[in-house]
Amino acid sequence: MKNLISVSLRYENNKLTVINQKLLPQNEEWIDCHSIQDMCDAIYDLKVRGAPLIGVAAAISLAQYVEQGCSEDELVLAAAKMRATRPTAVNLMAAVDRLMAYEVFDKSEISSIAERIFDEDVELCQSIAKHGADLIQTGDNILTHCNAGALATVGVGTAIGVIHEAHRQGKKIHVYVDETRPLLQGARLTTWELKKLGIPYTLICDNMAAQLMASGKIQKAIVGADRIAVNGDFANKVGTYSVAISCAYHKIPFYVAAPYTTVDTECGDGSQIPIELRREDEVRGVVTGLHEQFWAPRDAKVYNPAFDVTPASLVSRWVLDRGVFNYEQIKSGILKS
Amino acid sequence: MKNLISVSLRYENNKLTVINQKLLPQNEEWIDCHSIQDMCDAIYDLKVRGAPLIGVAAAISLAQYVEQGCSEDELVLAAAKMRATRPTAVNLMAAVDRLMAYEVFDKSEISSIAERIFDEDVELCQSIAKHGADLIQTGDNILTHCNAGALATVGVGTAIGVIHEAHRQGKKIHVYVDETRPLLQGARLTTWELKKLGIPYTLICDNMAAQLMASGKIQKAIVGADRIAVNGDFANKVGTYSVAISCAYHKIPFYVAAPYTTVDTECGDGSQIPIELRREDEVRGVVTGLHEQFWAPRDAKVYNPAFDVTPASLVSRWVLDRGVFNYEQIKSGILKS
Repeated sequence: MKNLISVSLRYENNKLTVINQKLLPQNEEWIDCHSIQDMCDAIYDLKVRGAPLIGVAAAISLAQYVEQGCSEDELVLAAAKMRATRPTAVNLMAAVDRLMAYEVFDKSEISSIAERIFDEDVELCQSIAKHGADLIQTGDNILTHCNAGALATVGVGTAIGVIHEAHRQGKKIHVYVDETRPLLQGARLTTWELKKLGIPYTLICDNMAAQLMASGKIQKAIVGADRIAVNGDFANKVGTYSVAISCAYHKIPFYVAAPYTTVDTECGDGSQIPIELRREDEVRGVVTGLHEQFWAPRDAKVYNPAFDVTPASLVSRWVLDRGVFNYEQIKSGILKS
Repeated sequence: MKNLISVSLRYENNKLTVINQKLLPQNEEWIDCHSIQDMCDAIYDLKVRGAPLIGVAAAISLAQYVEQGCSEDELVLAAAKMRATRPTAVNLMAAVDRLMAYEVFDKSEISSIAERIFDEDVELCQSIAKHGADLIQTGDNILTHCNAGALATVGVGTAIGVIHEAHRQGKKIHVYVDETRPLLQGARLTTWELKKLGIPYTLICDNMAAQLMASGKIQKAIVGADRIAVNGDFANKVGTYSVAISCAYHKIPFYVAAPYTTVDTECGDGSQIPIELRREDEVRGVVTGLHEQFWAPRDAKVYNPAFDVTPASLVSRWVLDRGVFNYEQIKSGILKS
């Protein structure tokens, strides 16, 4: 494969490395993903996270395995293993499927599919950013939840890509960043990205957004997605649904930004999206790569879904690579194709 | 003063001690509050917290100061200092005002006012609990936010008092506990209390409640209050407003429980309630007595209001010591008297 370079993933001189997102923003550590097991561990453990990124990373890891000389049977097994790492983000399944749809089990064919998946993600992000930026005006204070930025893709990101593009166009904006408990992707990753981009932001706890909305301090909310059903319902990081409800209550536009690879054409509505449950300790305290502290009783019973589903009725606009769509367009079945 | 004993405050043999709520549930440390400064520090630093408790604690501390032989001028100064520790909870102002309304500057009169304030809080909690328990049915899963339990009062608590009483009456209930970022009163204190009471609970992050509501797993929500305006709007721990909005969206009853000492008859509506802003580091990481870790960039700009205001229109019932009231009754001005 040719060299493929993004903010959080690098394939250089046949060596695949990813930034360990669990250690950000304190440490910028790059992890070697020499084997399928390395990549599966990194995805399962959220060192590699973000729906578009895990799709691309899985594809490149599989292509690397082929370049290392694995057999077709070994590749099939590895693909199954990769798919099983995380259940909710459909980009993972889509990228693995696409790679496994090769006509000939051949190093150069499979490598070029992986390269196309990478290059396409960059372009998809760019299209989303361009379309979405039209929705943003100077003076906007924009709420975002979790991290849907360059770290979560191999391009400029989805939700943050839109914000980035609006900023690049000279629109004066400010971002409110939900910290995003329990794994704090907002507090750790979105802050890190926005600082690098020079975009002013304010960090808040997830439960503070509604009060800001009530006092007129938020004009828009934009988030990414892990899976979009054909009726427009979508799964994203837990807490997204609360943001959408609060936006509806305050009549604030709520946007979701994602590439077509996030749309699951097999999925009729949000109730069919599997929601990953993660371990209890994440909620009993803080568990990132650098922090492990428990403040709740160690035997506290915990419920810890990684995602929630936001119904289409709460979404103002779907910002996709093909353009910006409203509820009527989504209802008419535009996501089916 | 006579001995006055509660879960989180003890006045015994002329010695005033409080449990350090910043160290719970890991450590049960009792702090000596020998001076006005000790108590002011403990309240400001949230070692003593909970709207009813800080009112009672302030009154007892002032009465102790009188017993120690302070002058009237010194008492007036101390009362002003006590009032200034925290701006939002009106119980603090109410208790200090009541103590300072003595007719004669006299040890025994002032002590007996403080004793009455303590004893009355116990009775108020009991009345709230009795009235509120009628709203709870066997099989209910009840969401609560922050801690409005025995730790926050000198009685059985307000919101948790209601839950406690329903459980005592043999109703089979289960509680979902919002962890309550940033200071984690739910994860640390409510879990600790519910465990001691033998009431089953599940801890969640604040942003997970809406998803539970959508899947029919929450039947009711009940919270405490730091200040209630005469129109029924109320301030409570930040995040309460989000809970109320999500309850309204899912048509789930949302109750607020508080004693009359939390009602501010001078306050027309929620917009007049001062909201305390706390330090940025609380949101950049976790700052309790035992935990101090920062996961966000240390220079991240932060917005950190300790409270938010929930409008009366989102409240299903006000559970007060005088009884349970609905929106029409509140609108008719019942809180004015």
